[in-house]
Amino acid sequence: MITTTTTTTTNTTTVDIHSHLYPPAYVDLLRARSTIPMVRDNRILLLPAEEDDTSSSSSSTADHHHHALPGRPLTSDFTSIDEKLLFMNKHRIRISVLSLANPWLDFLDAHQSPDVARSVNEDFSRMCRLHPDRLFFFGVLPLTASLDAIRASIAHLAGLASCRGVIIGTLGIGKGLDDPDLLPVFQSLAQARLVIFLHPHSGLPNDIWGPRVAEYGHVLPLALGFPMETTIAVTRMYLARVFDNVPDLRIILAHSGGTLPFLAGRIESCIRHDGKLAHEHQGRRSVWDVLREQIYLDAVIYSDVGLKAAIDASGSDSLLFGTDHPFFPPLTTNAKEDEWEWESVRLNADAVVKAVGEGTAEAKAIMGDNAVRILRLQHETS
Amino acid sequence: MITTTTTTTTNTTTVDIHSHLYPPAYVDLLRARSTIPMVRDNRILLLPAEEDDTSSSSSSTADHHHHALPGRPLTSDFTSIDEKLLFMNKHRIRISVLSLANPWLDFLDAHQSPDVARSVNEDFSRMCRLHPDRLFFFGVLPLTASLDAIRASIAHLAGLASCRGVIIGTLGIGKGLDDPDLLPVFQSLAQARLVIFLHPHSGLPNDIWGPRVAEYGHVLPLALGFPMETTIAVTRMYLARVFDNVPDLRIILAHSGGTLPFLAGRIESCIRHDGKLAHEHQGRRSVWDVLREQIYLDAVIYSDVGLKAAIDASGSDSLLFGTDHPFFPPLTTNAKEDEWEWESVRLNADAVVKAVGEGTAEAKAIMGDNAVRILRLQHETS
Repeated sequence: MITTTTTTTTNTTTVDIHSHLYPPAYVDLLRARSTIPMVRDNRILLLPAEEDDTSSSSSSTADHHHHALPGRPLTSDFTSIDEKLLFMNKHRIRISVLSLANPWLDFLDAHQSPDVARSVNEDFSRMCRLHPDRLFFFGVLPLTASLDAIRASIAHLAGLASCRGVIIGTLGIGKGLDDPDLLPVFQSLAQARLVIFLHPHSGLPNDIWGPRVAEYGHVLPLALGFPMETTIAVTRMYLARVFDNVPDLRIILAHSGGTLPFLAGRIESCIRHDGKLAHEHQGRRSVWDVLREQIYLDAVIYSDVGLKAAIDASGSDSLLFGTDHPFFPPLTTNAKEDEWEWESVRLNADAVVKAVGEGTAEAKAIMGDNAVRILRLQHETS
Repeated sequence: MITTTTTTTTNTTTVDIHSHLYPPAYVDLLRARSTIPMVRDNRILLLPAEEDDTSSSSSSTADHHHHALPGRPLTSDFTSIDEKLLFMNKHRIRISVLSLANPWLDFLDAHQSPDVARSVNEDFSRMCRLHPDRLFFFGVLPLTASLDAIRASIAHLAGLASCRGVIIGTLGIGKGLDDPDLLPVFQSLAQARLVIFLHPHSGLPNDIWGPRVAEYGHVLPLALGFPMETTIAVTRMYLARVFDNVPDLRIILAHSGGTLPFLAGRIESCIRHDGKLAHEHQGRRSVWDVLREQIYLDAVIYSDVGLKAAIDASGSDSLLFGTDHPFFPPLTTNAKEDEWEWESVRLNADAVVKAVGEGTAEAKAIMGDNAVRILRLQHETS
């Protein structure tokens, strides 16, 4: 294996565990749709907030201004494995663990989702086989289908050489991740040694941002809604004792856990001071225990302040560098053409250096060694 | 001034800036009401979630179980200045900065709120005058009334010797703290050198916690909803350029800023990557600048992990110890009688020691010296 160099750490195998791609079959699916998620006029519309952009821009005369258009341009960054590799090379990323971006298959009914899951997972497997030393993936599950169908999908994924887990949103099979009906799914994943990559999509209801939300671009739903959604979902899992009931379950939380590292103390204190829970949860492992033992956090947090809290909560052996590519591209159109690194990547790489020092063992661990170890990113061990 | 000792730091003047009290006039107001907020059967019901408890317990046969009753018992902890002083003495708190607890006056109409504000503020002033070296307060504003009435209230507060600021929720005059109509209020407060203590109450809409929320006591709305509400409110203020427009405004964020220190990097990155905002906000001060220059954070975070992030974000000269008394009392009823410290207080005091070391200058600053300096807690300088 070639030891690569990044601009920020030396002699580091950089692994990006937060890297999205829409395979062709999925893009075709979105092109055929007329409600979000959808592709229209070669732009991809994913979030409820983007539906609002649609109505405002269609009645606007400012369509020449690119921000009046809804969603994001569906560039090859979203769909092309070659673009992914160019991005990786530019940023000296040795290995990427790809995943379908939100909203996965949550909008499909039970008749469609198993077949689409199989197609998407086979697409990812095929792409990874082309570059077996550089690409792995997290598959998708047909969570809207029957438990049997979900288990069949897990069995399928367990047999794909480059699959290391599954990416899921916060809905589960419709009632959230604290739904007791999800326990068999979690058990099957743990048994298959497939890690969960928990990623937000739904955010929070749009009316909580207040009447001026549209003046702030997508900052409120993206910067706050996404991490809050993750935090709520994993806290519900914790309160439902999922981690106790499935001790082998391992979960990576997107965006350094949303806000879980910062709020863990308050969650613990609220449980200890709630008569009902303090009684029912006697002998429970604390939120801190679960953060250290069953939870991994990506390092997509854009500052050393948050990253240090994430490290303090889960340990530097549990943090995993990521980029969120192809989201948050540079605003200047020519930046993509030249040799500039993406600022979103640099912010996350710089945070590691600031938090644990340049070229330290901890930095190497977070930038890639942890991912290689935790996700077994060498094919001889798979 | 007597130099006091706490169990966790030595030679420290401990100041509690997060300490609530309901004066008699306010309790009488709540007793006369039949919707939340209200006092019924000598229990105080404050939160929307507690309304649900009401319906479940009134139809329940398990009323002997104290958790089946709605709300909290309205003990003298909530109303008595003598109990406050006993609590302070037990925990070696030299000075408390009292504030009315949520939901303040937000539920009163424009005809009622000015008079109630005056009564409540005079009650606080009277109580502080009884112990001028140990008690200060944050007043309340009649935000549901006219701007003139609000300004008259600010002028009234500015003339009360023990008043050092105002406590407000996140509603403002109904449309949130990014409402342009609030700017004159912020300007008047800044001019009067009254700091804002921003405190959550409304949480997030109850349906976002999922169908099993009631099984988790009040953990989800209290542990997550409260800090998320604060984070959203202050981020909206930031995005509306309130801090740029009122450079002398100073604000203390409850619960160490909700989650702002952890999410500041993501907020910054989302703004930089949003074409509309990146253009409109050219020359803006970053979220980090505002965190360092205009925002103070209380240290009510129950863990050193969160506290360290708060310190990294705002500086150890901007953190202010607090207890949230009389909320989160010990669960064991006899704990109140004996010499035990409240666990909720100990968790916050321990977090300071773990974060910055025992007896260090930083610990002394956070435990009290910062509050004395920032809030001018010596009457000779007021």
